[in-house]
Amino acid sequence: MKTKQKTVRISIIGFGNVGGGVAEVIKRKREEITRKYGIDIKIVGIADMKSVIVNENGLSDDAIMKLKTGEKPEYVTTLDVIKEVEHEVMVEATPTNVVSGEPGLTHMITALESGRHVVTSNKGPLALQYRKLMELTTKKGKEMRFEATVGGAMPIISLVRENLAGNGIMSIEGILNGTCNYILTRMVEEGLPYEHVLKEAQERGIAEADPSKDVAGTDTAVKLVILANSVFGRDATYKDVDVAGITDITPEALKLANDAGYVIKLIGEVDRDECLKVAPRLVPKDDPLNVGGTLNVATIKTDLAGDITVIGKGAGPIEAASAILSDIIGIYM
Amino acid sequence: MKTKQKTVRISIIGFGNVGGGVAEVIKRKREEITRKYGIDIKIVGIADMKSVIVNENGLSDDAIMKLKTGEKPEYVTTLDVIKEVEHEVMVEATPTNVVSGEPGLTHMITALESGRHVVTSNKGPLALQYRKLMELTTKKGKEMRFEATVGGAMPIISLVRENLAGNGIMSIEGILNGTCNYILTRMVEEGLPYEHVLKEAQERGIAEADPSKDVAGTDTAVKLVILANSVFGRDATYKDVDVAGITDITPEALKLANDAGYVIKLIGEVDRDECLKVAPRLVPKDDPLNVGGTLNVATIKTDLAGDITVIGKGAGPIEAASAILSDIIGIYM
Repeated sequence: MKTKQKTVRISIIGFGNVGGGVAEVIKRKREEITRKYGIDIKIVGIADMKSVIVNENGLSDDAIMKLKTGEKPEYVTTLDVIKEVEHEVMVEATPTNVVSGEPGLTHMITALESGRHVVTSNKGPLALQYRKLMELTTKKGKEMRFEATVGGAMPIISLVRENLAGNGIMSIEGILNGTCNYILTRMVEEGLPYEHVLKEAQERGIAEADPSKDVAGTDTAVKLVILANSVFGRDATYKDVDVAGITDITPEALKLANDAGYVIKLIGEVDRDECLKVAPRLVPKDDPLNVGGTLNVATIKTDLAGDITVIGKGAGPIEAASAILSDIIGIYM
Repeated sequence: MKTKQKTVRISIIGFGNVGGGVAEVIKRKREEITRKYGIDIKIVGIADMKSVIVNENGLSDDAIMKLKTGEKPEYVTTLDVIKEVEHEVMVEATPTNVVSGEPGLTHMITALESGRHVVTSNKGPLALQYRKLMELTTKKGKEMRFEATVGGAMPIISLVRENLAGNGIMSIEGILNGTCNYILTRMVEEGLPYEHVLKEAQERGIAEADPSKDVAGTDTAVKLVILANSVFGRDATYKDVDVAGITDITPEALKLANDAGYVIKLIGEVDRDECLKVAPRLVPKDDPLNVGGTLNVATIKTDLAGDITVIGKGAGPIEAASAILSDIIGIYM
């Protein structure tokens, strides 16, 4: 609740669903944010794979729309925007790459070197080079926030680090992939086999044409690595995770579990010692981890506050954009 | 993650279960907090109904134990501690009084007037005089934090204000009283009448000898008022809440609900307009609000992030103390 108004200039690097969502929510919320937090957010640069637009006084909604609809003034590169255009926060929203982390990794390093805070939804660089990025962040006296990388709109990283600050965190376990949860939920509801429900999920846009990253547990594993590093101070990478997916789960297995009072969910589990694991697990029906549909859920085990569970939508561009917006505001609160 | 160490001197006013819990968790966590947050918390004064101990250099664990076990050096009053002993944060943990708000209200006003931050678990003053207290807090440039008043260890106020900062909050609904939840859960499980289960809850220490505040919905109503004022900026007091309790719920009603796929829960509901209501409500079994035992739960409806649900232990002295400790740390983060 600042009383003096402050202009916060941001760039959006990567202008797909999430980056576009960020521009959209800032447009919708600009006045409310200024009123509530005393921050005037100006988008001064946007870059996607093919083109770049820049206006040091803040891009108009029209200019942003034009970029979206295909007019391409290609007069600078993405790295020029990050380095040369004066701004406070770079929003990195390019697609995740868990092999090289690029191009996100270079964008983040360049932004920090140029004295910008980083807010991101891009899991790859954090799953591969967390410690290096944090050391650079500290060295430059900046902030890096990444709530959108885990659980979409469901707050978990900031919840643990801020709201539960007095607590020792023992472990986190949960459902961190909405596609897998949807498939398993529908298999139970309809008694149908995996392939059938996967096809339905693809038709509904819940699973991608190539669903392998979701159903093989890779996406959950990458999110776990981010939690391992950021919450537990571990130095893990994606390769350290013990991963199994949901492709071998049969309607018969789900029925047996059901008769015994359980559901089967793809659970990611991380603690402060050795555990870093993604696998299908029996969950009692009355456990808070038993949530249906595409929901995500995480149970945080603490030494003082007991178990805290948080449930929310794990995916969706507006949800991710809302986490990014909260992160931007959080830097200035 | 501060690098320079800072001493934070606190007083604990009210030394029952919660106040004692605060001293206990600070004793257990002192080194960890210094390491993680660069804050050295010193308890410089403790006051309960009968006596006071003060040491401007920080009370020893021995001195605190002696107060607990009955040695009573009565050389100053509670208000002297708040006013005269130099410290940064007053922790107010006296019992809740929803008629006058006293003695907590006077303690809080005195602390703010004396230039102290206030962290509290005491619902009464906030349910009666929220706006007045906040105006004084702002005027004095201090902070007032009260996470422990609603949902115990379950973070909700800070979750909404910090983690969901980019969102407009439409409404909050949930189970905010663990005693009622325990009674309704057991009535369903055992098919037993209200009186029988209440007696069991009293024997297990879950319900008080006089359970009226819990079962009549008063406790839930007071917590709702705090949410109405702090989250939605309303100017409500306890008298504005439409309240019904659980005393008339029969095993037959629970069974009918169960057969139709529902449970009955005592739900508090508040939004940014008119709604401020506590009543038993049908909740679908697969709704995130359907949690059992003594758990608390709240679903926060937002404009961007969709529904976020948080589940945790609503009561218990260590849980409340953990919320107070997180609030103290939060002031300096």
